[in-house]
Amino acid sequence: MEKIINVGLVGFGTVGSGVYTVITKNGALIEERTGIKLVVKSICDLRVDLVKKAVSDDVTVTDNWKSLIEDSSIDTIVELIGGIEPAKSVVEAALRSGKNVVTANKKLLAETGAEIFELVDRTDVKLGFEAAVGGGIPCIEDLKNGLVANNVKNILGILNGTTNYILTRMELAGLSFNDALDEAQAEGFAEVDPTFDIEGFDAGHKICLLAMLAFNKKVDYKAIEIEGITRIKTTDIEFARRMGYAVKLLGIAREQNGSIDVRVHPVMIRESHLIASVSHEFNAVVFDTDMTGEVLLYGRGAGSLPTASAVVSDIVQIALKQDVAESAILTKGDATLVTPDKRSSRFYLRLHTQDRPGILEKVAHTFAANNISVSSVEQHETGDDTVPLLFVTHNCCEADIKKAIADINNFDFVTEAAMMIRIEES
Amino acid sequence: MEKIINVGLVGFGTVGSGVYTVITKNGALIEERTGIKLVVKSICDLRVDLVKKAVSDDVTVTDNWKSLIEDSSIDTIVELIGGIEPAKSVVEAALRSGKNVVTANKKLLAETGAEIFELVDRTDVKLGFEAAVGGGIPCIEDLKNGLVANNVKNILGILNGTTNYILTRMELAGLSFNDALDEAQAEGFAEVDPTFDIEGFDAGHKICLLAMLAFNKKVDYKAIEIEGITRIKTTDIEFARRMGYAVKLLGIAREQNGSIDVRVHPVMIRESHLIASVSHEFNAVVFDTDMTGEVLLYGRGAGSLPTASAVVSDIVQIALKQDVAESAILTKGDATLVTPDKRSSRFYLRLHTQDRPGILEKVAHTFAANNISVSSVEQHETGDDTVPLLFVTHNCCEADIKKAIADINNFDFVTEAAMMIRIEES
Repeated sequence: MEKIINVGLVGFGTVGSGVYTVITKNGALIEERTGIKLVVKSICDLRVDLVKKAVSDDVTVTDNWKSLIEDSSIDTIVELIGGIEPAKSVVEAALRSGKNVVTANKKLLAETGAEIFELVDRTDVKLGFEAAVGGGIPCIEDLKNGLVANNVKNILGILNGTTNYILTRMELAGLSFNDALDEAQAEGFAEVDPTFDIEGFDAGHKICLLAMLAFNKKVDYKAIEIEGITRIKTTDIEFARRMGYAVKLLGIAREQNGSIDVRVHPVMIRESHLIASVSHEFNAVVFDTDMTGEVLLYGRGAGSLPTASAVVSDIVQIALKQDVAESAILTKGDATLVTPDKRSSRFYLRLHTQDRPGILEKVAHTFAANNISVSSVEQHETGDDTVPLLFVTHNCCEADIKKAIADINNFDFVTEAAMMIRIEES
Repeated sequence: MEKIINVGLVGFGTVGSGVYTVITKNGALIEERTGIKLVVKSICDLRVDLVKKAVSDDVTVTDNWKSLIEDSSIDTIVELIGGIEPAKSVVEAALRSGKNVVTANKKLLAETGAEIFELVDRTDVKLGFEAAVGGGIPCIEDLKNGLVANNVKNILGILNGTTNYILTRMELAGLSFNDALDEAQAEGFAEVDPTFDIEGFDAGHKICLLAMLAFNKKVDYKAIEIEGITRIKTTDIEFARRMGYAVKLLGIAREQNGSIDVRVHPVMIRESHLIASVSHEFNAVVFDTDMTGEVLLYGRGAGSLPTASAVVSDIVQIALKQDVAESAILTKGDATLVTPDKRSSRFYLRLHTQDRPGILEKVAHTFAANNISVSSVEQHETGDDTVPLLFVTHNCCEADIKKAIADINNFDFVTEAAMMIRIEES
């Protein structure tokens, strides 16, 4: 009953080399467990000589990905180069040539996935992307299989290890954002150019994919509201802590009256919620469903071997379900996204103003004029001439608070744009 | 591409009625997602009239399970009566007649699973038991599929909601064990006869199954060391808290030099470990593997709908993998279990003694004579004439500490058997 699956790896970076390691080290175990023997037949990478030194002699190494597509003995192409092109061409050519595809490329799938998913549905081949979200955490599989009998109501995710590491170090060590980022880079948890992570785009791609899978609708990545963590200060984190909250960058996707609310931004979430205890570079995702209630999955969301573990699991699952007609993702039309005027919550606001009479009155008037009721206000004396004013509102409409913030930012006594953090009461 | 799966339910209690509800409410969703249409064809339960009132007219209700086995139109038998007999006869008859079986019966599989797993391997049918461990948490599937490429090194599980609820209430509200048990019964988190849960047997069945699945060896349930939570006092929990630990009932299964260490008992575990934050009736399991590192899964480990969600997921997965030859569980021979003389850790001890001179000396001598080095000792004045003496040891052999405890319990000044809790440093 042994079945050989020949694998072609495109991209031999962190994850690609991890896939080679996992198959080399644990291939015999996988074969014992499933009857599937995985063979890395070819690797495509621009650094041909370097790769040749790292792998066994019987692996073909090339810098021409088309030769892997043309090799009829290859069953599954693993795309690990990232980004849109040439990744998209590789994936589409592989699918068209009748090969299954496994990818960790969340950007590709979130931004151009609709075309790729349709292509999968028109052919007999399969697409696996467990590694695109949550690294070594089997969250895609759980959503597709383990929770198949459930309507998902709400997803909350700490989907980016870099930002969670930074926020954790800001909280535990009192570091500034910049110092925490420096440390994250030194520890290997942030890229040299960290923009993609700290601005929330990576988490945005991931929540977009989870939302499509959970709600079976196409979600337009460009329409998702995404905000990163670059404007968070220790003041915000300390204030949250005093209130019994932690500051986390969350990806959120929830059903709301037939529309879908998808977004990525920092939130204050109660410390008693298990996700608030997810620290450092770890990731976690909560699926709240109609039958199971909250299910939380936690683990390493990145890194060579955890991500490779997810890639290899996909290769095996696809081989096992070879004869099953299964969609990569079921999409029944386009999602209608919830807009800020339909969202409400409590909000935390940090204002920086000059220190002179009448300011609090003007701010308070602006809140009232925008239907915002203030729950608490705090201002401590400092040696500086500008002191932050910290507010927490009662439940109010997000469009209203955004209007109030725009109005406040226009006052001449405001020395720095207001910072708003949503209070998430899940 | 629609495929109809006719289901026969044996047992219409909490979980059985939940399965009916899940299929009725979410059957259309499941069909859309997978192409599998689930039909509850027949239900067997002794309370025929009661069941008839609860289900649609086109469902056959009988009190004779054999008629479900004989019905050739039924594809999958769902066994939800629990216990060994007649559940074992139902499962075996179904498998022999070529029907797939889904069960939530951890007792049956942990105590007599080896025979059933062999029967599955000799036939073309499949056995699903996701619901037997962790209720709505897809932990069996993650172990089999999502983590298929990994060697599991260590499993830690809060596998029983009743005991976790009791320990949580003892910690948060300072309740005694008996008061917390009363509350758990009033809240529906403990049975009228709670023995099976509070003595650790339920968690024992579950860790036995997880160990077999993770390490691919048969584990003899009767050989597993199991200790419940009935002897834990608030004194222990308060002491743990002062040290930065939480008291949890853990199922543990880990590889140790080719042997497998499987056990269930209370531990003190650092509050910073995520599993220490799992409170009330919730369950969680941590898989520590060679490629992913720690993966934690959390959710409701019991209850009608969460468990039913797992049952229905199994029915669907089996239908999707109909043509795949897959073992229910791969067992390559019998596991060698680690014995106490091969285990070491730090230990907490609570001794109750009379309050007179020379006692501490005799206890200290007993520790020294058994190679046990004491890390801390604490005794506070109380109004009683017996005061607890609390010790924490340095790392030592479990066989030695057990010998020391036996010696200490023989002293005439001991007024209550010593309580030992292992300190788990995972």
